[in-house]
Amino acid sequence: MTYDQATTREVLDGVKASGRTALNAAEAKRVAGAYHIPTPREGLATSAEEVVRLANDIGYPVVMKIESPDILHKTDAGCVLRDVIDAPAAEAAYHSIRDNARSYDADATISGMQVQQQLPASQEVIVGAATDPAFGKLVAFGLGGVLVEVLKDVTFRLAPTSHEQAAGMLDDIAGSAVLNGVRGAPPVDRNALASLIENVSALVTDFPEISEMDLNPVFVSAEGVAAVDVRILCSFEPLVPRYRPSHDDILSAMKRIMQPDAVAVIGASAQDGKIGNSVMRNLIDGGYAGDLYPIHPKADVILDRQCYKSVVDVPGSIDIAIFCIPARFVAEVIAECGQKKIAGAILIPSGFAEVGEHALQDEIVKVARESNVRLMGPNIYGFYYTHQNLCATFCTPYNEKGKVALSSQSGGVGMAIIGFSRSAKMGVSAIVGLGNKSDIDEDDLLTFFEQDPNTEVIAMHVEDLKDGRAFAEVAERVSKKKPIVMLKAGRTSTGAKAAKSHTGALAGDDRVYDAVLRQCGVIRAKSLNDMLEFARGLQVLPTPKGENVVILTGAGGSGVLLADACVDNDLSLMTMPDDLDAAFKAFIPPFGASGNPVDITGGEPPSTYRSTIDLALNDERVHALILGYWHTIITPPMVFAELLGEAVIEARAKGIDKCVVASLVGDVEIEQACEYLLDRKILAYPYTAEKPVEVLGAKYRWARAAGLL
Amino acid sequence: MTYDQATTREVLDGVKASGRTALNAAEAKRVAGAYHIPTPREGLATSAEEVVRLANDIGYPVVMKIESPDILHKTDAGCVLRDVIDAPAAEAAYHSIRDNARSYDADATISGMQVQQQLPASQEVIVGAATDPAFGKLVAFGLGGVLVEVLKDVTFRLAPTSHEQAAGMLDDIAGSAVLNGVRGAPPVDRNALASLIENVSALVTDFPEISEMDLNPVFVSAEGVAAVDVRILCSFEPLVPRYRPSHDDILSAMKRIMQPDAVAVIGASAQDGKIGNSVMRNLIDGGYAGDLYPIHPKADVILDRQCYKSVVDVPGSIDIAIFCIPARFVAEVIAECGQKKIAGAILIPSGFAEVGEHALQDEIVKVARESNVRLMGPNIYGFYYTHQNLCATFCTPYNEKGKVALSSQSGGVGMAIIGFSRSAKMGVSAIVGLGNKSDIDEDDLLTFFEQDPNTEVIAMHVEDLKDGRAFAEVAERVSKKKPIVMLKAGRTSTGAKAAKSHTGALAGDDRVYDAVLRQCGVIRAKSLNDMLEFARGLQVLPTPKGENVVILTGAGGSGVLLADACVDNDLSLMTMPDDLDAAFKAFIPPFGASGNPVDITGGEPPSTYRSTIDLALNDERVHALILGYWHTIITPPMVFAELLGEAVIEARAKGIDKCVVASLVGDVEIEQACEYLLDRKILAYPYTAEKPVEVLGAKYRWARAAGLL
Repeated sequence: MTYDQATTREVLDGVKASGRTALNAAEAKRVAGAYHIPTPREGLATSAEEVVRLANDIGYPVVMKIESPDILHKTDAGCVLRDVIDAPAAEAAYHSIRDNARSYDADATISGMQVQQQLPASQEVIVGAATDPAFGKLVAFGLGGVLVEVLKDVTFRLAPTSHEQAAGMLDDIAGSAVLNGVRGAPPVDRNALASLIENVSALVTDFPEISEMDLNPVFVSAEGVAAVDVRILCSFEPLVPRYRPSHDDILSAMKRIMQPDAVAVIGASAQDGKIGNSVMRNLIDGGYAGDLYPIHPKADVILDRQCYKSVVDVPGSIDIAIFCIPARFVAEVIAECGQKKIAGAILIPSGFAEVGEHALQDEIVKVARESNVRLMGPNIYGFYYTHQNLCATFCTPYNEKGKVALSSQSGGVGMAIIGFSRSAKMGVSAIVGLGNKSDIDEDDLLTFFEQDPNTEVIAMHVEDLKDGRAFAEVAERVSKKKPIVMLKAGRTSTGAKAAKSHTGALAGDDRVYDAVLRQCGVIRAKSLNDMLEFARGLQVLPTPKGENVVILTGAGGSGVLLADACVDNDLSLMTMPDDLDAAFKAFIPPFGASGNPVDITGGEPPSTYRSTIDLALNDERVHALILGYWHTIITPPMVFAELLGEAVIEARAKGIDKCVVASLVGDVEIEQACEYLLDRKILAYPYTAEKPVEVLGAKYRWARAAGLL
Repeated sequence: MTYDQATTREVLDGVKASGRTALNAAEAKRVAGAYHIPTPREGLATSAEEVVRLANDIGYPVVMKIESPDILHKTDAGCVLRDVIDAPAAEAAYHSIRDNARSYDADATISGMQVQQQLPASQEVIVGAATDPAFGKLVAFGLGGVLVEVLKDVTFRLAPTSHEQAAGMLDDIAGSAVLNGVRGAPPVDRNALASLIENVSALVTDFPEISEMDLNPVFVSAEGVAAVDVRILCSFEPLVPRYRPSHDDILSAMKRIMQPDAVAVIGASAQDGKIGNSVMRNLIDGGYAGDLYPIHPKADVILDRQCYKSVVDVPGSIDIAIFCIPARFVAEVIAECGQKKIAGAILIPSGFAEVGEHALQDEIVKVARESNVRLMGPNIYGFYYTHQNLCATFCTPYNEKGKVALSSQSGGVGMAIIGFSRSAKMGVSAIVGLGNKSDIDEDDLLTFFEQDPNTEVIAMHVEDLKDGRAFAEVAERVSKKKPIVMLKAGRTSTGAKAAKSHTGALAGDDRVYDAVLRQCGVIRAKSLNDMLEFARGLQVLPTPKGENVVILTGAGGSGVLLADACVDNDLSLMTMPDDLDAAFKAFIPPFGASGNPVDITGGEPPSTYRSTIDLALNDERVHALILGYWHTIITPPMVFAELLGEAVIEARAKGIDKCVVASLVGDVEIEQACEYLLDRKILAYPYTAEKPVEVLGAKYRWARAAGLL
């Protein structure tokens, strides 16, 4: 698509020159025309003859309206006529409207008669663009009209957006079925609508000074689209470019930071209770095998390690320096780190932006940029990288190695990760505190974890993305290889409260995060506990090979709850093929329910569980298995756990690795059975039907977004 | 409001006599008129003079439409004109429409010209009525138009509904703000709309043969309402009245059943592994102190108890008989129970409706009715009533006494209750299996629990309500005294798939359950785990005295997550009064955040937690307290738990009993801290910010519905 940028530039320059930020209707219409955004044909006439000429030009039917600053409620005054179908009707309408206007207000100023193409019966939608504080230029799409303004059924994409992405937006909204035609209406022209969205996204990308845009309403029908009202707002203030090192620079620094060969502890201390002491101890007790240099102005030896006055005095090279000194001393030591070519400064100290000390934080960032040192923090607990036995933190040592990397912006959430991970045997590759995110943020971490062979799943607690655009770009790439789970805290709008357009008012809204994260293939967790469970579960579950889910249960009641949960988590219960149905029936009592859920009934011995599980595992058409176990005397919890474990392990040995999750209900013995299963990498949960299905749903969401299904 | 029942009866009799089930437009309009349901003024004219006379009568503006069976798309044919504002315009329109009709189809039969009152600019809504399989007559209200048909933003009430309840429906829908006026529109006439709903509910109540009704669209504006299209469908099949014993009869039977002085076990057995043996053992091992009579055709003594051939041979009176015999023998023994004046038969056996043996089930119900014996089950695990040490079940003995009564339709869910209750130290008064619910159902249980001093909270797992109407009536009364939590399983519609109206198609829908349960003050749990947690938590939390919630946290990050959860659970964060804000500030570091959440920051000693907690507990303006604890070395988990426990217990001693819930994040020691707190009746959860707030939210929902807030 080629656009007329010159015309657009001319219009915007004119607006700027006149000291305005809003385009008038004519200007907006010119810009729309330059970017192939269709608007209805229309014009203003001042006599009956002109009206007829204009209407003939536009084509019938037309809508006619009085143009008068004194008549606000034109319809009430009888000054709007629709369905004007030919020239005589247009002439009659002209007189009729003028007469009505006179009798409504004899003194009204009448500047003419607006004649507008009457669009065919159609659906109203809204298309817009906004500038989000985190993500920059966005396009928005939603159903139009007053109802949807209230229901706020709107979706977003990063601009620029491809035609295909724009088309995807049409299916994103809750009311999307309207576009496919309901109550006998034909489907709308989706292609034209997607092109319109694409063109809007190109416009705001080409002209970043366009800060907000509303096409509201856009009429869309089977015949095409037209934006009835176009509103464009500009901001001519210069944009501050984001600091964005190259991918290679990020990666080489992050590798040295996350897997350092040598670590310095700034403010190391021999004194119990000091942070500089806790960090030293954690490094030593954690078993860190690289070089470790305590830095202290006076001490000679700390915890049996030779001490240096400054990093510059250390003979060997150093990868990271962990700061355990007060905020006011940080900047000068960062400069020394620069001299020493240290890759990263881990800034545990608080006392910066989080307490209002923005100047102090700006200063350390400035020094770090000049010194080519990356900053983690400040105001963090530090970080762990377990596969290097690295506990660069003042918290407890932690060494449950695993394949999940987690980050958190808050120390509280970091501690929840540590505790849950230990309690639920999750195992982690890294836990990273990001705190104020003065420099290193989620996209730097993603760049490292993307290539880290020790990391298979990434989970992030985020309060704000400093550079959502950079995050989205990296996340979209990484999520295709490794699942990314995000807990986005802070649901209230942080956006542009003073926005002048509908779309603009949605910038910074939680819905923007929702849509953009989905676009990037990031799995959003709705709660802290979900983030933790998803992180653990996504690592354990293999990638499903298809959408066919089968529920196998010993309790009909659990089957119903599991099926409900499948609906809630967008999982497809397989339509049971006749042969497989018959095969299941052969194992279950005549009153058991075949179909899906398969209800083997409660009184069955272990062999029935085992036979039906084997059947499901070995049938290629079944891609995932949800088990609903019911505690009975005839098949006690541990017997069930052992037979399920055996079945799955045997299947794995044959190369069959399917998603298997289990809900166990029963007396307290089921807790032990769940642990037993988890040790065999089978996700099992006690006293809940929903959690296993939610985790399976998260795996499916990821696999679909990554294009693996 | 008086209605013209005679006219309605006449119309409906006519419809029935003509063998139809649907009313035609004129009939529907007559019925609407009889029940004060406003419709637009309209008429049919066959000449220009008639059109003008009619339009003069109706009042301008009018809408004119061709009446022709051959012209389906009237607007496209130019055969609909709006905004006809006076007599000359009406005459012109008559000719114009006729001409257009001719040129569209010269051979079209034209039966006249419809002239209809043109309603003022207004909002479209839909009002309807349906007959739900569980709840009977319902009224429905939603926003109209194609969008809302897709978005299905509709709410329901049991008919008849009061004016006040009808008015409440207007606020129930997601798009309710539309009715208050948006984009400068004035608010609609809510009173007229509520009256319309009330009148519809009266109509379907007075004439139960009206099975479905749609007023779609209804135009509502500041000036009033009018139903543009009225659709009424009847079902003239006779209704089978429900079996409904009187309240006193239910209660006297249920008291004997739940708290029996003498129990017979039909099919008692000395043989290990038999159900009749498990039941005997559970009764004995559970410590049941009443009379216990094993019934067996041949045995003399079973487990040291004298055995009888039949209940009729037992010398003393008996309250309940627990059946452990095959299905085919059940009916005759029920008859014997009747002779013996036994109040209830507890039917453990399966093999009835759940396996398609409907006739067998119908038979036992018939015998039971004739014999005046209430039936629990069949196809159940039995029941527990702990305060009588009664384990009338083949499951394990269970004796954790408490104040929560639970019921389940499924054995699987029953086992989940038992396990969770033991593991989470919930304590129960009763656990009841309802299975096929051939007779005793949730409203019978509610009638008993209502007056049971050992029960304070009721939780129910329900797959289908056999008599939703009876349940709703009892639940509405009981929920005002004791919280009722319901897990409604089975989200897919079981309703009238073949319905002919929009509203009718929604009968049996999950949304109906949602709306009716809310109307009755029942707290709906969205998952099994929520039901269990709510049951435990609602019992522990006192009734809040007001809406002011304060979050007190040691980790800013937890504060954000807790605040998010408050938004999700409709909790109001108190706007902090200046004096209280200042009082908090006195205890926390200068960089801590006052306001609400109160962030005391992470490095604080126990005394800061204690002082701020005391402040919140002792300030009368604070009604509920959410604590976000963050594991630190300076205030370790057990130290926090002890200080919080102390503070709450001291406050309770002073008569201050506020809702206190806590989210603990940290290393595994927090699990022990949570248990410690729970033992002191302070709800505390590890690794989750959401659960404590959800439980607090449930308590608030209940208190609001019960009119206590």
